[in-house]
Amino acid sequence: MNETTSQKTPVTLLGLGAMGTALARTWLAAGHPLTVWNRTPARAAALVDEGARAAADVAEAVAASTLVVVCLLDDASVGEALADVDLTGKDLVNLTTTTPAQARDRAAWARERGARYLDGGIMAVPPMIGVPEAGGYVFYSGSRELFELHQETLAVPAGTVHVGEDAGFAALHDVALLSAMYGMFAGVAHAFALIRKEDIDPVSFAPLLSGWISAMAGPAVQQTARQLKSGDYTTDVVSNLAMQVAGTPTFLTTAEQQGVSPELINPYFELMRRRLAEGSGEEDLTGVVDLLLR
Amino acid sequence: MNETTSQKTPVTLLGLGAMGTALARTWLAAGHPLTVWNRTPARAAALVDEGARAAADVAEAVAASTLVVVCLLDDASVGEALADVDLTGKDLVNLTTTTPAQARDRAAWARERGARYLDGGIMAVPPMIGVPEAGGYVFYSGSRELFELHQETLAVPAGTVHVGEDAGFAALHDVALLSAMYGMFAGVAHAFALIRKEDIDPVSFAPLLSGWISAMAGPAVQQTARQLKSGDYTTDVVSNLAMQVAGTPTFLTTAEQQGVSPELINPYFELMRRRLAEGSGEEDLTGVVDLLLR
Repeated sequence: MNETTSQKTPVTLLGLGAMGTALARTWLAAGHPLTVWNRTPARAAALVDEGARAAADVAEAVAASTLVVVCLLDDASVGEALADVDLTGKDLVNLTTTTPAQARDRAAWARERGARYLDGGIMAVPPMIGVPEAGGYVFYSGSRELFELHQETLAVPAGTVHVGEDAGFAALHDVALLSAMYGMFAGVAHAFALIRKEDIDPVSFAPLLSGWISAMAGPAVQQTARQLKSGDYTTDVVSNLAMQVAGTPTFLTTAEQQGVSPELINPYFELMRRRLAEGSGEEDLTGVVDLLLR
Repeated sequence: MNETTSQKTPVTLLGLGAMGTALARTWLAAGHPLTVWNRTPARAAALVDEGARAAADVAEAVAASTLVVVCLLDDASVGEALADVDLTGKDLVNLTTTTPAQARDRAAWARERGARYLDGGIMAVPPMIGVPEAGGYVFYSGSRELFELHQETLAVPAGTVHVGEDAGFAALHDVALLSAMYGMFAGVAHAFALIRKEDIDPVSFAPLLSGWISAMAGPAVQQTARQLKSGDYTTDVVSNLAMQVAGTPTFLTTAEQQGVSPELINPYFELMRRRLAEGSGEEDLTGVVDLLLR
């Protein structure tokens, strides 16, 4: 085993929460020498049984490998954990969930300490790590050269997508996709609430609901993107903004009749109405994006 | 041609908007004798060239076939158009968009006039009609026997899904799925707003966004359905409600830094916070559904 692992890039991993532990297992399974550190040392024990080396402190962990992957609770935890550690010559890959601004600041902070820096945004929950067919992946941003240098190692736990040299772009992509997902969840919650008191089996209803969302997402997102890029929001499809606003009372009345609060669907309808009031009835729904920007 | 068409069920179609016209063309193409009526007669002319018979008035149109399909602007238009028409012995299939309550009332109204009644909710835009691979379909509710009697004819323009004997269920399914879609659109609008001022090509961003939504919709909807059915909302996945609420400041701060109003994502976060405050931190997000019900 030693002969095999010696050919693989050594990795140091800081942070053994559910996500860090999932990442660690994939590198161990792939034969990478792995040094781990966690604030509460107990979490490292199981990984040591699987072949990891547990460092006594952060400095020792960082010293063990050039490639240092960080997966901590938040940006403040990263600053605290690495405050007094020598990062000279290190390649820091920060998978901690942050805002784009925090990622940019952390990139500058790392540079000042003599380290190269990549930021990452993990588009997966821990059970999807190491399971390629689950479709999880990680956004990376920062130097493309540095990304390509470590891509093979970084691709072990999940797919990789480099989204730009700006260190904040991985976090921005991460936040944008997760925000959109919560919007989808809001629509799903409203839909389930509508049928909740009826003799409709939610488990039979589920594939109809998710099938519709999945079928509509691709064309709608693509059309919005094209219109934002061209600046021409007029629709070539039949249901323009005016017609869709005319349809909203059916949704609101149905919600009322089913005893469901409209609070999750009305904010979007309100923006549709505002855009219509601006004289954009012949457009698609794309103008709502501009109304959100201040 | 007459010998072929005489074997197919004759159809009367009331309403030749974009959707009605699309439906009409599929029945003509499949060889069904088709009688059409529209309030403004001009819209029937092109269809007459394609083989339809244009009735002089609604009564003549209804008299022409046992199966009468209605696709008008709204429920009031249906009541007006058919107010003085003899419906005895007719099979009325109402594809007009309505609320569930309007569908139930219309079913009773039809029964009083001696007609059998099916309600339908079209899950497609007109370009998807007659294009099976586009994935559009129609929800039907009311008598299953009546549905099965006409299923072959009704399946010509789009797929069919019978969702219950309750005449209101087609409309309820229709409204539920479209409401969820608007929730998804709201999330998508927020996501595009987040990247709007950055050097990120929306057309390159689009497949990442729609891919994530599509990948997440199935598992999330299925899990919510199972939990609603069992009544046990505790999660077996790592990100419970408490952890997800802890993550919301990153989304709100990012929105603020990108100059994007949080109005489309905050209502859902607010319900997550309310549910957490009720002591449900170990749960999944499913409890939000119950908070919507009054």
